Amino acid sequence: MAKDKKVEQITDMETDFAQWYTDVCKKAELIDYSGVKGMFIYRPYGYAIWENIQRILDAMFKEKGHENLYMPMLIPESLLQKEKDHVEGFAPECAWVTVGGQDKLEERLCIRPTSETLFCEHFRYIIHSWRDLPKLYNQWCSVLRWEKTSRPFLRHREFLWQEGHTMHASQEEAMRETEQQLDVYADFCENYLAMPVVRGQKTDKEKFSGAERTYAIECMMHDRKALQAGTSHYFGDGFSRAFDIHYTDKNNQQSFPFQTSWGLSTRLIGGIIMTHGDNNGLVLPPRVAPTQLVVIPVAMHKEGVLDAARAVANRLKDAGIRVKIDESEQSPGWKFAEHEMKGVPLRLELGPKDIEQAQCVLVRRDSGEKRFVALDELETLVPQLLEAVQQGLFDKAKKNLTDNTFPAQSLEEAKRLQEENGGFIKTMWCGEEACELRMKEEAGMSSRCMPFAQEHLGEHCAICGKPAKKMIYWGVAY
Amino acid sequence: MAKDKKVEQITDMETDFAQWYTDVCKKAELIDYSGVKGMFIYRPYGYAIWENIQRILDAMFKEKGHENLYMPMLIPESLLQKEKDHVEGFAPECAWVTVGGQDKLEERLCIRPTSETLFCEHFRYIIHSWRDLPKLYNQWCSVLRWEKTSRPFLRHREFLWQEGHTMHASQEEAMRETEQQLDVYADFCENYLAMPVVRGQKTDKEKFSGAERTYAIECMMHDRKALQAGTSHYFGDGFSRAFDIHYTDKNNQQSFPFQTSWGLSTRLIGGIIMTHGDNNGLVLPPRVAPTQLVVIPVAMHKEGVLDAARAVANRLKDAGIRVKIDESEQSPGWKFAEHEMKGVPLRLELGPKDIEQAQCVLVRRDSGEKRFVALDELETLVPQLLEAVQQGLFDKAKKNLTDNTFPAQSLEEAKRLQEENGGFIKTMWCGEEACELRMKEEAGMSSRCMPFAQEHLGEHCAICGKPAKKMIYWGVAY
Repeated sequence: MAKDKKVEQITDMETDFAQWYTDVCKKAELIDYSGVKGMFIYRPYGYAIWENIQRILDAMFKEKGHENLYMPMLIPESLLQKEKDHVEGFAPECAWVTVGGQDKLEERLCIRPTSETLFCEHFRYIIHSWRDLPKLYNQWCSVLRWEKTSRPFLRHREFLWQEGHTMHASQEEAMRETEQQLDVYADFCENYLAMPVVRGQKTDKEKFSGAERTYAIECMMHDRKALQAGTSHYFGDGFSRAFDIHYTDKNNQQSFPFQTSWGLSTRLIGGIIMTHGDNNGLVLPPRVAPTQLVVIPVAMHKEGVLDAARAVANRLKDAGIRVKIDESEQSPGWKFAEHEMKGVPLRLELGPKDIEQAQCVLVRRDSGEKRFVALDELETLVPQLLEAVQQGLFDKAKKNLTDNTFPAQSLEEAKRLQEENGGFIKTMWCGEEACELRMKEEAGMSSRCMPFAQEHLGEHCAICGKPAKKMIYWGVAY
Repeated sequence: MAKDKKVEQITDMETDFAQWYTDVCKKAELIDYSGVKGMFIYRPYGYAIWENIQRILDAMFKEKGHENLYMPMLIPESLLQKEKDHVEGFAPECAWVTVGGQDKLEERLCIRPTSETLFCEHFRYIIHSWRDLPKLYNQWCSVLRWEKTSRPFLRHREFLWQEGHTMHASQEEAMRETEQQLDVYADFCENYLAMPVVRGQKTDKEKFSGAERTYAIECMMHDRKALQAGTSHYFGDGFSRAFDIHYTDKNNQQSFPFQTSWGLSTRLIGGIIMTHGDNNGLVLPPRVAPTQLVVIPVAMHKEGVLDAARAVANRLKDAGIRVKIDESEQSPGWKFAEHEMKGVPLRLELGPKDIEQAQCVLVRRDSGEKRFVALDELETLVPQLLEAVQQGLFDKAKKNLTDNTFPAQSLEEAKRLQEENGGFIKTMWCGEEACELRMKEEAGMSSRCMPFAQEHLGEHCAICGKPAKKMIYWGVAY
């Protein structure tokens, strides 16, 4: 296929992965820069991916009994300060409202960087008895963090996310919730986004400000860097005590409830791009693709072509496929490149000769594989092919993860493996922050997580040689 | 039915309509106050109504070709100032961010009170050719207006809404869009919320800051006050020129596109409460009710009751009804009152005797009408009853609107009618703002709209006696 100017404009990923990424974000019309530094416009095509993510995840949350609500976007400074570790983590990157209307405010208000404090204040007023537990809440909103650097989807000053906040009568129930929601995230990433994950616990250094434990799913991008794709936090009763949330339990005693929170954001779209994309642009997993199949009429103005193309599109729509037909006045070649750039999983070409023979051409975006298909088989074949693309993307990403995860016995070996190959380096670890800091300083890697699926790689910490406590993954992260 | 304590707590609407309204908002657990003045917490039950509104409206917008996107929440002061009338209208009630992280900002940023300026800046970068038109965009988000007073749902400093923003090649097309979207709003209000509307044009005094024309739908609440339920604005090319958005048209000329915007917010939930509610609490139109039917097992712990109740609930769920079963350890009487307060359209009671006779009791929330129904007729009867409730609510609200709309020939008559009865007063009007101001000052009424369905009530303005230009509606508004 002759490539047109549009496609030629994107940088090859092998030449400059970062530039390739930015090119795809812009040329696939996913996102755009706004007039305020670090704040982005989610364009319709990018936002439509988020809408699909929302629809699927929201149903998964509700199926587990969670309810949505909406809290205010502004937090009084005194409220943010109620939990010491939390404010230390977030206050340095807050945006502050100091003027309302014509008046200087008596107390400044920050735009939520996350909403634990607001939820806790609300919980304090609505949780009085064991009958009021559990509370299983979730909110879809945007949050603001005044970052110094930014990249489309990966690091914004304002980004879209969901934040779950739950309260439980027992420690065990809250821990189960924390684990359950991490599993929901892992299930979603693997089965809908075709992104294989490593599940594990964050180190104390890397955990959420104010949490007792943070669990995370970590993914590997095409350039072998790590992306934290979702986190689930267990708070114990720390916030409950700080916010004086107490209730009368079944034994008529005053108790503090146990808390969790969990979040997942639009950075996942960055993950999709960097996991599946190629030098022709975006490649979307069919289950979240806004358009799953695009119909391209060939020799569009020949009699009967457009009618036949529309009939095929309508048949597939009726079969539950998300279909688009491109009737614009561009050449078929231009359209092929355009929809490849946008990562549409399947392309259906239909021209006068095809119509005569009651067939069409189906092309897979992931492999480029092309086949002639009888028109009357479409309803059967298209769902099968979409599943095949979905599975193919997962298998390829899984291979990337497996092939690029290496054990190391020493800091030197870890450093060499990262420099030569990249990927995840797994070592034993003593549990000390000093060793994390040394790994960062000398090998440029942060700890990603202590996987739930532990392996015994030896007796000693690869960094300091002291007795090891855990196997841990290291990587260079987005 | 003996009323329990819970229900006794709400004020009768005849005693104090405002207090009744606040009581319903709180006791039906729709909304709560937050720690920041004028900012509210949309609780799960209230938010679930909004989710239903969103789902239905979003599909209506998309069916007309609109796409969703998401713009940043912060607007630089210089951008807000680009259109003179617009900034005059909105700047006085903006909340301003002046500090980001540790630094004082060079230019202060306001939290969006509405997003015309942000959309225009984006349009400037993406509209170059006639091929780029129309742009049909919509955004679901929250906006902030630093109001001095507040009431749940009706006036918040932060509220949830949708804002549509479109750009067109011709004046005619933009006008058609403005009208079409007002019709979408009217259709939605009447057919889903059971709220009859008056469609018309706002006066220059009442139109949106920066618009050439504003169309609105006006509803009448149970207390005969007016609620503006949705607006649709036509901007001409005013913003296009102010923001220098131009494109090459089909004749290779530089042109400015024509613009619209339209918005509808969570204040509609306030409208639902004040249109349909009664002294037992909320009454929800079935088409947006989070729960359409609640199953109450009577003598719940008798053998077989809970199983039978669950079986009925599941059958109705399978039939597409939004069903809840209340298995809590409360008396049936408590549960009846609770779900009446929450406005659930239908209640299904099922006890041991009913089970023996293969029947149950169905009670309509709107009329209190009670009937025995054979269990095997439920799948047929429940959808019919829900439709009957929906229609019944609309008819009652329509009668309230019709019965309380009066023509007047003079300011004195208008004033007397408002004082004695309330409602909408329709008069002829000369078109001068001076007469609007006099009506406000002397009769306490603002102009609601100049209905599209004009009537000829006379030759002269009811206020000044000069030749009349339009028939206009007056009222006391929320």
